[in-house]
Amino acid sequence: MPSSFRVVVIGGVAAGPKIAAKVARLRPEAEVTLIEKGEHLSYAGCGLTYYISDMVREQKDLMSTPVGIVRDAAFFQNVKNVRVLNRTEAVEIDRANKRVRLRSPANGAESWIAYDKLALATGARRAVPPLPGANLRNVFGLKDIADAEAIKQATADADIENLVIIGGGLIGVEAAEAFVAIGCNVTIVEMLPQILAPLDWEMACHVQKHMTDKGVRILTGAPVASLEGAEKVEAVVLASGERIPADAVLIAVGIKPEARLAAQAGLEIGPTGAIRTDEYLCTSDPDIYAAGDCAESRHLITGRPCWAPRGSTANKQGRVAAINLCGGSERFPGVLDSMICKVFDYAVGLTGLTERAARECGYEAVAALVPAPDRADYYAGKKMLMLKMVADRATGRLLGLQAIGPGEAAKRLDVAATAITAGMTVDQVSKLDLCYAPPYSPAMDNLITAANVVKNKIEGRLTGISPVELKRRLDAGEPLTLLDVRTPAEFEKSRLAGAIHIPLGALRKRHGELPRDKDLVVYCGSALRAYEAALILHHAGFDRVRVLDGSVLMWPYELEKPGA
Amino acid sequence: MPSSFRVVVIGGVAAGPKIAAKVARLRPEAEVTLIEKGEHLSYAGCGLTYYISDMVREQKDLMSTPVGIVRDAAFFQNVKNVRVLNRTEAVEIDRANKRVRLRSPANGAESWIAYDKLALATGARRAVPPLPGANLRNVFGLKDIADAEAIKQATADADIENLVIIGGGLIGVEAAEAFVAIGCNVTIVEMLPQILAPLDWEMACHVQKHMTDKGVRILTGAPVASLEGAEKVEAVVLASGERIPADAVLIAVGIKPEARLAAQAGLEIGPTGAIRTDEYLCTSDPDIYAAGDCAESRHLITGRPCWAPRGSTANKQGRVAAINLCGGSERFPGVLDSMICKVFDYAVGLTGLTERAARECGYEAVAALVPAPDRADYYAGKKMLMLKMVADRATGRLLGLQAIGPGEAAKRLDVAATAITAGMTVDQVSKLDLCYAPPYSPAMDNLITAANVVKNKIEGRLTGISPVELKRRLDAGEPLTLLDVRTPAEFEKSRLAGAIHIPLGALRKRHGELPRDKDLVVYCGSALRAYEAALILHHAGFDRVRVLDGSVLMWPYELEKPGA
Repeated sequence: MPSSFRVVVIGGVAAGPKIAAKVARLRPEAEVTLIEKGEHLSYAGCGLTYYISDMVREQKDLMSTPVGIVRDAAFFQNVKNVRVLNRTEAVEIDRANKRVRLRSPANGAESWIAYDKLALATGARRAVPPLPGANLRNVFGLKDIADAEAIKQATADADIENLVIIGGGLIGVEAAEAFVAIGCNVTIVEMLPQILAPLDWEMACHVQKHMTDKGVRILTGAPVASLEGAEKVEAVVLASGERIPADAVLIAVGIKPEARLAAQAGLEIGPTGAIRTDEYLCTSDPDIYAAGDCAESRHLITGRPCWAPRGSTANKQGRVAAINLCGGSERFPGVLDSMICKVFDYAVGLTGLTERAARECGYEAVAALVPAPDRADYYAGKKMLMLKMVADRATGRLLGLQAIGPGEAAKRLDVAATAITAGMTVDQVSKLDLCYAPPYSPAMDNLITAANVVKNKIEGRLTGISPVELKRRLDAGEPLTLLDVRTPAEFEKSRLAGAIHIPLGALRKRHGELPRDKDLVVYCGSALRAYEAALILHHAGFDRVRVLDGSVLMWPYELEKPGA
Repeated sequence: MPSSFRVVVIGGVAAGPKIAAKVARLRPEAEVTLIEKGEHLSYAGCGLTYYISDMVREQKDLMSTPVGIVRDAAFFQNVKNVRVLNRTEAVEIDRANKRVRLRSPANGAESWIAYDKLALATGARRAVPPLPGANLRNVFGLKDIADAEAIKQATADADIENLVIIGGGLIGVEAAEAFVAIGCNVTIVEMLPQILAPLDWEMACHVQKHMTDKGVRILTGAPVASLEGAEKVEAVVLASGERIPADAVLIAVGIKPEARLAAQAGLEIGPTGAIRTDEYLCTSDPDIYAAGDCAESRHLITGRPCWAPRGSTANKQGRVAAINLCGGSERFPGVLDSMICKVFDYAVGLTGLTERAARECGYEAVAALVPAPDRADYYAGKKMLMLKMVADRATGRLLGLQAIGPGEAAKRLDVAATAITAGMTVDQVSKLDLCYAPPYSPAMDNLITAANVVKNKIEGRLTGISPVELKRRLDAGEPLTLLDVRTPAEFEKSRLAGAIHIPLGALRKRHGELPRDKDLVVYCGSALRAYEAALILHHAGFDRVRVLDGSVLMWPYELEKPGA
């Protein structure tokens, strides 16, 4: 390594600062330069919605160390030994001569900086749909601190009563909570048939229901035609013709990898639109690495190229890229596209494949829907948690977990992410020695119960029917018997329309009341009692019995409420 | 399988009911009989302390289904098709004739019951030390509902001001919180040098400190000589002679496997004192299975016999034993002795091996102490979490995790349990795609940071010193320089006595002030800045630099507080 080992890092938000600092630690003699187009360095992009809702009070809190030191250019120089050129745009990579052309956005002045190794951490940019009226005042995006400041300014200056969010993805959903917190009337309009497109439809339904309960109006399958207003936005007009009054609009239809600089330099771009990298995070040029939101990853289950922009991944990749561009050989194995977000009182998350994605990838997916308290049933602090576990019928391998609800979702998701990464089967998951005490989990953890349900299905002990399939058959008028085996009190409160009621404890004596010539779908609260009932019925000679997956607690449609 | 397949299950608390119900589901034609010495069935032994503190209001809540149906004999008959003989003691197993002798504790009447397969779920019993005065009134144990009722009765009848708990293990520590909650003055006396013996000493110190802050007096290294009193207990007398006034005493010196019935029948007993089983949970008699607290397990890391009495394990083993005694071949691979408990505002847990246990097992253990907020630093709801991760230097394999603090410990413990079970290295752990959003974790999860610290140690980038080792060297008067690289404000608040102060940002300019002829130990808050400092000093030619593991935040001894 020459004594003047010159490393240039482009992008100063997440992966970039990580790379720069790590290189300076590994090679104290290196000349490390960090180029950032904007003013701010190393800020928490994931915290912007919490800044809008004032949960994070000051802008500088988003870019400070835990002891309150702002991570500015002086900090990087003094503490990290990294030279920072912020308010400086990298406009061209001259790979032949190993140099980068820089431009000051302020005065247009240009210069070249030479590198021995270059790291690209150019991040992502907002997708901007070609909507008429998108340039009206009070139409915002939310990608960086300037966006957040503009929104805070607007909400401080004037009374924003009606706010419309275009896009029900991660950012739109998180922003909805922030805007409700500051007193806005929030409507989300989403083009797709569901919010949070990465989730399976029925899981997204439960999130949508919770948001609706919290006062957010949500329109799905609702493409936007235009924004209207004189100088300031006044309304969002849907393709359906509906006109939604709006004092402000947030456009949150997604982000794209910022790979333009790399593409112009002739670096390979992957099928996801992000910069192609190998497992060492090296691009198609051996002297150039890429990390963070601009870089493509590999999906750990499918092996396919995958673009998973996450602050967590950016930090991990930054470390790996730094080690390798210093001559190391550290692998970044890939991602599961794990995600979680807080949606009012719910945690909502996914790791690995949904049922839909698993089928698209060619797996014969087996799914379990398990709604249950997240702690011992008698423990006062327990909260409801809804799990959807997906596995491969052929191998029993765990493929994915979705978890939503007020209960402890993150723990089960992270355990599932670990198990999926290790290639565990549901059998192995069902025997994990997880930590148990009543304030933290039921004796049979929700995840272990879900794994057992999947095992029961794979091994033929349990035949389920999904709520979507049942609804389809009911709507089609197919002849089937619905059997509710809950207590009379539960049955009186809410139920599936048309169900026959026989409490589980009476079923051994009363199954003669049930018709034998039709399919029989049994349900209860969570499907546990329905499973017992199905076994009793099977033993009594009923051979067309199915258990409603997730039963009443995860039924995504309306229930009949006799008492209401 | 004959049509009259007779299964007898001995023990009606946790594993037993699970086995009985599962057998009845798998073989609806079986005659399943559940024998229980006591009155109550299928109750939550782990919830007893919450019953004492009135967090669980009614006794029946500990033995009810989620919809409030008490799991009594009628419930087991009607719903589970299991015949229950409670208030019935199994006093002899006649293996030759495959039958069990039963006795009614009430009237001494005896009878025999025949079995095709027998399952033992006899649980554990309280260890009772031979203490003079242990039979005095108001001296309690806490193992079953009768114990809990006796305690509740005593605290309701009279004013229990001073309560002494003998034993600082899991039950003693959990009970301390319950007794503080109902207004007692609680003292714990523990014979060993630390409470919570399964933890490493310095981790137990932090728990002890928290309990002391909550008003519990804790004496370690304090064996008890006797209990004194006229008819009711009045004092606990220590071997040291100290006399601690006591209106009531809880003896919680541990539990033992209840394997006497099995031993009398000539079944093999393992080195732990529990019933030896193979990985199918079959005992040395092919017609007899054992599960739950009476059964021995295998440790997943060491492969050694291991006795890990847990409600979670009992449920998992019960399922496996039931499948196998019905002719299946389901494996129970083993346990990690994972544990967690709530101690006031702290969660306290362990999975796998501590540093001490790892060394005892012959590993060259590498440990990281990582204190950090459990969520994004700018997120208002963040809480402190202290991790101790242990790995094997030779292979990099993760061996154990201890987690304590107000922060989210259970999640990291369960992820670690999964990773250990999968045989993951710390490198693999450091690249897990865990779910990230500011309300749930930092961008670099605490567990990933800990894995990176261990990696840095194994790969020689970081040389640490444990707080115990540093204290030993300071107490021995060895010459060494202590360097504090925190901010002036932090340094003024509290510090290690005798430390030199140079803030990290000034270290590149001021390292000339430091002596070069002595070992230099650098610390900060969490050790992150100290690591940066060590690299700066190393680059400046200092070659005897070590970083204090866990630094100030995990220093288990007194700190100097200039302002106090």
